[in-house]
Amino acid sequence: MAKAELTAAADTNLHDELRGRFGERYSTAAAVRDHHGKDDSHHPVIPPDGVVFAESTEEVAFAVRTCARHGVPVIPFGAGTSIEGHVQAVRGGISIDMSGMNRVLAVRPDDLDATVEAGVTRMQLDRELRGTGLFFSVDPGADATLGGMAATGASGTTTVRYGTMRDNVVSLTAVLASGEVVRTGGRARKSSAGYDLTNLLVGSEGTLGVITELTVRLHPVPEAMAAAVCAFPGMEEAVGSVVEAVQMGIPVARAELLDGTAMRAVNGYSGYAYAEAPTVFFEFHGSEDEVRAHGALIEEISRGLGGSAFEYARQQNERARLWKARHDAYPALLGLRPGCHGLTTDVCVPVSRLARCIAESEEDLKTASMPWGVVGHVGDGNFHAVFIIDPDSEAELAEAEAINERIVRRAIAMEGTCTGEHGIGLGKIGYLESEFGTAGVAAMRAVKAALDPQGIMNPGKVTG
Amino acid sequence: MAKAELTAAADTNLHDELRGRFGERYSTAAAVRDHHGKDDSHHPVIPPDGVVFAESTEEVAFAVRTCARHGVPVIPFGAGTSIEGHVQAVRGGISIDMSGMNRVLAVRPDDLDATVEAGVTRMQLDRELRGTGLFFSVDPGADATLGGMAATGASGTTTVRYGTMRDNVVSLTAVLASGEVVRTGGRARKSSAGYDLTNLLVGSEGTLGVITELTVRLHPVPEAMAAAVCAFPGMEEAVGSVVEAVQMGIPVARAELLDGTAMRAVNGYSGYAYAEAPTVFFEFHGSEDEVRAHGALIEEISRGLGGSAFEYARQQNERARLWKARHDAYPALLGLRPGCHGLTTDVCVPVSRLARCIAESEEDLKTASMPWGVVGHVGDGNFHAVFIIDPDSEAELAEAEAINERIVRRAIAMEGTCTGEHGIGLGKIGYLESEFGTAGVAAMRAVKAALDPQGIMNPGKVTG
Repeated sequence: MAKAELTAAADTNLHDELRGRFGERYSTAAAVRDHHGKDDSHHPVIPPDGVVFAESTEEVAFAVRTCARHGVPVIPFGAGTSIEGHVQAVRGGISIDMSGMNRVLAVRPDDLDATVEAGVTRMQLDRELRGTGLFFSVDPGADATLGGMAATGASGTTTVRYGTMRDNVVSLTAVLASGEVVRTGGRARKSSAGYDLTNLLVGSEGTLGVITELTVRLHPVPEAMAAAVCAFPGMEEAVGSVVEAVQMGIPVARAELLDGTAMRAVNGYSGYAYAEAPTVFFEFHGSEDEVRAHGALIEEISRGLGGSAFEYARQQNERARLWKARHDAYPALLGLRPGCHGLTTDVCVPVSRLARCIAESEEDLKTASMPWGVVGHVGDGNFHAVFIIDPDSEAELAEAEAINERIVRRAIAMEGTCTGEHGIGLGKIGYLESEFGTAGVAAMRAVKAALDPQGIMNPGKVTG
Repeated sequence: MAKAELTAAADTNLHDELRGRFGERYSTAAAVRDHHGKDDSHHPVIPPDGVVFAESTEEVAFAVRTCARHGVPVIPFGAGTSIEGHVQAVRGGISIDMSGMNRVLAVRPDDLDATVEAGVTRMQLDRELRGTGLFFSVDPGADATLGGMAATGASGTTTVRYGTMRDNVVSLTAVLASGEVVRTGGRARKSSAGYDLTNLLVGSEGTLGVITELTVRLHPVPEAMAAAVCAFPGMEEAVGSVVEAVQMGIPVARAELLDGTAMRAVNGYSGYAYAEAPTVFFEFHGSEDEVRAHGALIEEISRGLGGSAFEYARQQNERARLWKARHDAYPALLGLRPGCHGLTTDVCVPVSRLARCIAESEEDLKTASMPWGVVGHVGDGNFHAVFIIDPDSEAELAEAEAINERIVRRAIAMEGTCTGEHGIGLGKIGYLESEFGTAGVAAMRAVKAALDPQGIMNPGKVTG
């Protein structure tokens, strides 16, 4: 309906109003629209009708107010690195590109926090924090924007120690469907004041508001860090090493699993020579003594499970090289079959059930006709099977989706979730009700209708 | 309006329906109603019209559905230990006493979590976890129920290390205003699926639903623990020692401030002989080496600020005695003026501003005509000034509230919050708008109206 309005008489007025305010920073060029109608996944391009390149909260508010007056959808766009179809303009509308809102507004070492505009990317923040003795912990593979990471409830390799975006967003500024600007809190480390609007917006994928600024937690760079690589005879043993460490409360900073296929892909993509077996990349943070002690404890656990001797990386450049291998796993897997797209599962289960969940899921995966690999944030109970599918083959897409469905149903039956960190987007709407029941989804829809009565905020996502 | 209905014709039917279902477990006795219309604070008794003693989620759902049909308010009641007037029946209605829902349903050492009914108290859970090697970390002073602690977004002395209820509730089961039962998630350690209903209910103080079950995180009991007491020449130095430790990333497990008055009260209440000076109670958790190292680092910081030599408590019974002193601070302060009530401030500010916030607040406090003392969760930026007021003196209440208002306005101006852990209840409704702006409060009211269109869930609290 909104789409219909946009292509009718209201269309010209809306375009004129946006062009009048944003000039060159409003574009309806086909290439620009196409770029804003796709993400890093297999989901097809569905372009918006125009793209605003916003540079301030006030500009975002103007764009939202204008769209609201015309009843036209608004879709926030960060770096376009999401993978569940979050940015596709399924009902048309205006994409708001946040990449111009890329200022780090404040870094406060005394409070271990920073305030940034939503278009700042995680690597940009890393660079700006150099020399402060602080770091921002959440690191999804892609160089996503902080606003996008908050909107999808992202996490990463250090979540086992430092938490998800949810744990690391202190408060945020957002433009609601009415065009009003709301700040969800101050900078205190805790608060019991009112409903938790921060956590309502984190993970809402642009369907409740456009996040324009965030205050995030920073962590002191540990005195010592060491990474270690360990190959295992099988997936069960690899998973077991991490789960045992977590159960014992050993504060591992990272524990990332790659299966043999992913290791082969990484070797080929970046010229490494790792064993092409199930492997865990560990990292330990703390004082020199703690790092040594944690490493020794986990190496002992790993050896008991048939793991190889730990291959340590202690220097910054060695560790960076090692973690680049892990972060490259997704493009490396895609590289196994050039020209293909990824379809990625994202289930997360209680850690005690992870080994069984992966083992049973691998039985499903083995039936696949296309290549696939598994990577996992094992300490969180979260793993991804990446299917490498021919973008022109509907049969492959259907096959991968059918296996994904089996994996999701199993995870939910194990008291897990269909998505540990990628979000619902378009791809997982069908699982929401099995995870939360009709009453849970009805409550979500009631909240959505209350905050966005016209249904213009990234419509068609999350609750459908 | 709801109150008027209850006292009219609907009244009899409602009482009959509840009596029919609950028998002896539905009471309209004056003493029972009075007990359920007050909490641990200065707020006056406002009794409900009847009290249901529920024993299952289905019973809570029945009571809520019945009240909803009659348009009558529902007020959940845990241990009655809240202190902002959360349980007062300001518009009449039915109190649902959750203390009969006191079963620990599951403890899962392999997943470091437990599922409990909402009426389980924190000390009961402590007892039931003995011998498992695990503990539940959140410890407000009172022996509150877990459901009540979730509803108010409680925290405690270990929050600086292990987080608030928000950080420790994995998911929960709640009865919504419609009488429908919703489960807000599974048991995975993270999820990006849909809107965060868990965090929407945590801190909602019964205004969005009645929490009936919770899955909470547990933590492994550390290999070693040591507590230490350190007296300082002044409040600024005492606060400074903790803030510096937090800023350096030293993982202190507890860091609790008591001013000279609170120390005097504690000595008198429990027969201790501590110095009656600003004092910090520290605790360190980890391996033997870590505990020694963290203690030494913080002792060095403290000495630099004029702190006394650390007086260590390493054995379980010594530590328990030390922490009992801290947990007794509130009743001990009340004991300074027998027969009086407490009015407690609860601001929380960014840690870099805490010393200044306390110093400026003490200037306000010094004008008070009644006794007061200060205790603080310094590592979180949270402190409480406890006014000990004559329950029959409206002038003292007004005076304490006026000073509280100055403390709150200052904290909000410092990007802090009016409540770090006690919640809004009746007592802090007036500050919500200064903290979140009109747009923020309007968003909260929209959420409330969406999930509770009749306004029957603990009406008059949080958003008013």
